Amino acid sequence: MFAALVIALAPVQADYKVVADLLSRKGLTDLGAHRLLTDLCTNVGHRLSGSPNDAKAVKWCEDQLAKMGAVNIKQIPCMVPKWVRGKTERATMSIGGELSVAALGLSVGTPRGGIEAEVIEVKSNEEAEKLGERGRGKIIFFNRPFDPKTINGAYGGAVNQRTAGPSAASKSNAVAVLVRSMTYATDDQPHTGVTRYADGVKPIPAAALGIRSAEKLSRALAQGPVKVKLELSCQNYADVPSANVIGEIRGSEKPEEVIVMGGHLDSWDLGVGAHDDGAGIVHAMEALRLIKECGLKPKRTIRFIAWANEESMGRGAAAYKEYVQASKTEKHIVAMESDSGGFMPRHMGVSENKLEKVRAWEPYLRPFGVERFNAGGADADNGPLGPLGVTLFSLEPDAQRYFDYHHSRNDTIDKVNPRELEFGAIAMAMVAWMASEEGM
Amino acid sequence: MFAALVIALAPVQADYKVVADLLSRKGLTDLGAHRLLTDLCTNVGHRLSGSPNDAKAVKWCEDQLAKMGAVNIKQIPCMVPKWVRGKTERATMSIGGELSVAALGLSVGTPRGGIEAEVIEVKSNEEAEKLGERGRGKIIFFNRPFDPKTINGAYGGAVNQRTAGPSAASKSNAVAVLVRSMTYATDDQPHTGVTRYADGVKPIPAAALGIRSAEKLSRALAQGPVKVKLELSCQNYADVPSANVIGEIRGSEKPEEVIVMGGHLDSWDLGVGAHDDGAGIVHAMEALRLIKECGLKPKRTIRFIAWANEESMGRGAAAYKEYVQASKTEKHIVAMESDSGGFMPRHMGVSENKLEKVRAWEPYLRPFGVERFNAGGADADNGPLGPLGVTLFSLEPDAQRYFDYHHSRNDTIDKVNPRELEFGAIAMAMVAWMASEEGM
Repeated sequence: MFAALVIALAPVQADYKVVADLLSRKGLTDLGAHRLLTDLCTNVGHRLSGSPNDAKAVKWCEDQLAKMGAVNIKQIPCMVPKWVRGKTERATMSIGGELSVAALGLSVGTPRGGIEAEVIEVKSNEEAEKLGERGRGKIIFFNRPFDPKTINGAYGGAVNQRTAGPSAASKSNAVAVLVRSMTYATDDQPHTGVTRYADGVKPIPAAALGIRSAEKLSRALAQGPVKVKLELSCQNYADVPSANVIGEIRGSEKPEEVIVMGGHLDSWDLGVGAHDDGAGIVHAMEALRLIKECGLKPKRTIRFIAWANEESMGRGAAAYKEYVQASKTEKHIVAMESDSGGFMPRHMGVSENKLEKVRAWEPYLRPFGVERFNAGGADADNGPLGPLGVTLFSLEPDAQRYFDYHHSRNDTIDKVNPRELEFGAIAMAMVAWMASEEGM
Repeated sequence: MFAALVIALAPVQADYKVVADLLSRKGLTDLGAHRLLTDLCTNVGHRLSGSPNDAKAVKWCEDQLAKMGAVNIKQIPCMVPKWVRGKTERATMSIGGELSVAALGLSVGTPRGGIEAEVIEVKSNEEAEKLGERGRGKIIFFNRPFDPKTINGAYGGAVNQRTAGPSAASKSNAVAVLVRSMTYATDDQPHTGVTRYADGVKPIPAAALGIRSAEKLSRALAQGPVKVKLELSCQNYADVPSANVIGEIRGSEKPEEVIVMGGHLDSWDLGVGAHDDGAGIVHAMEALRLIKECGLKPKRTIRFIAWANEESMGRGAAAYKEYVQASKTEKHIVAMESDSGGFMPRHMGVSENKLEKVRAWEPYLRPFGVERFNAGGADADNGPLGPLGVTLFSLEPDAQRYFDYHHSRNDTIDKVNPRELEFGAIAMAMVAWMASEEGM
């Protein structure tokens, strides 16, 4: 049936409605994005940068791209940090028992036997820095919660405690850090994520606390002094090689003009990175597959990319930017990223100077949940290409549940709805198609 | 802090942005809808029409309304069917073992000891009716799945097998019916729901099959004849009394003009009706609470309603229509319903003749997920008021997961996200507020 449709379609490829129906019927029937994601989460698992699974995932991408008939499949290498969680992570209160903890990514470990110290609770990095000598020898506990009144974006208002809190605490000569998890969830799963030690600061061990543990610790502190013993066996090693993976459908008229779309292949190691960012990987991979399977021939090159190492240092994005700049033949016109989970699409961000142009595309995206374009489009991995004049797009799915799972053991395949996920892939395929027809 | 805001607000009640912020800050901080729903699902449980729980739920609504300071709290009585599932529901294949089944609502039971007969698989009611004499003494198995290519509304394309299939099969002298569950889910939970015997047709027992069971049975039938033994102990009794419950905030300028909003209080008995339609009940109840708690004084009367008996006969909606028609003093201007689950709002339906007017309200609803109004607005319970000239609104949340849970044991509180649920309540409060300011 699809063959017949494709033949009928040939003279009217510009008819976006026909293409949208074709992609959507194929996508919703196959639910290929969920099949790919199940395979990735099951047969590779987590994809911590620099781990053996990271290398397995690179191979997995190449295999999938080959299987779907993509061309010019290759790795774009980069060096990535190798950080290993190790077997021990434990935090015990002097009174009140265990706390649920997970080391932050790139954190140094504690000495064997752990660190025991009195805890000081703060709500901001500024407060931690201002402790000065009072912070010496203490464990600093960052406990500023997600602001519930924030409609979207509570993460942005809280996450600097995790990324920069340990450095702030170290400046006050603290010995370790505990950070309330970045989540609205009310369970006790710790949510990890990168911390970055500022230049010249002594690295101190840092761990995320589950929400219930954070509240338990805070209640105990309200009663009087509390000591915590923290043991983390995590460790940093020398950088190791990893790679971005690309594969494409070559453009029929202007193959040198490239529309690249993707997500990041690495994940944290607690869950399996189903939403973050397995969803983005399979959104883009399925988008490419749908275009191919529907027999569509784009005028411009449509390329899949799996970016390496988004979670800790962005080395994949940097390497791809260099690759783009070094090319004497290719001109990138679009870089589209999905790195906000696999929930039902709601909006799409786009570089502000192209907002007016792409408004005309909205009717073809609304059936797939993308109600409208918003000014934006820059995410962690496509962002570096913005200054090169590349038009950026970012998929914006519904965000209310995302941080319930993000960077925790709960980021697993059962949290992903196959149809919601597929709509993201269809929407990305459709944007790639319209960009390939029109140029940018 | 809210007291101060309310005072500051007094001279600018017409400023919808201020009201939207007020409702949203209060709602997202309290998450009152989820607290109400947790209470309803835990302390009442399912709310099958005519069951003891149905009466408990009526009392629960009155209590909650009193607690939040609503006035004119009362019951609007109606008689409802009393159908009891009973302890036994079992379906066993002559080869291949058990099938996962649940009696359809209002189905007659089998004779004690069950019915054993050969199974004929069909895909439509027409096919069942055309069987004629070939259907005599057989069990008819309706197995037309949800069309995966349908973006929304696959339910509408499949559900007549459940509502009218048993009647169609009875016309061909079948002895019982099995119906594939109305769901995209791939588990084996049967999804119940009403069946209605057509006039003059002999009622025959009918049960829903879990999806895996439906596929198992279909595979077995592809190999050769299969008998199934079906035992259902469900039973219909004489109608019993139940009631709608209303409670309101009286309008300050035109109290006789009524904006009514609600959901249906009854549910099926397999889960606890968390999404269907506990969500609708607490959406409307929380909307009323937010308006009161924020100190807003609506010009027109804003009324909460819990409709009785939506799931089987719509007796509550009929009784409320009579109540509206009988009133010599009240004029209903809006009837707003939430009966599509507690997921993140996406759109709102509205009577087509008011679509242009309410477009101006969209900017105040978008932050809460309601991207736009669509022509429509008639749902099962507010629908009967449409012909009386009442403007209808219906909340349209994201629908992809709804039928995974609908009418099954999986419709439980853990499937509801507190923030997604609250956004529905805030959006309804905001629409009620704007209607109360402007009239319709």
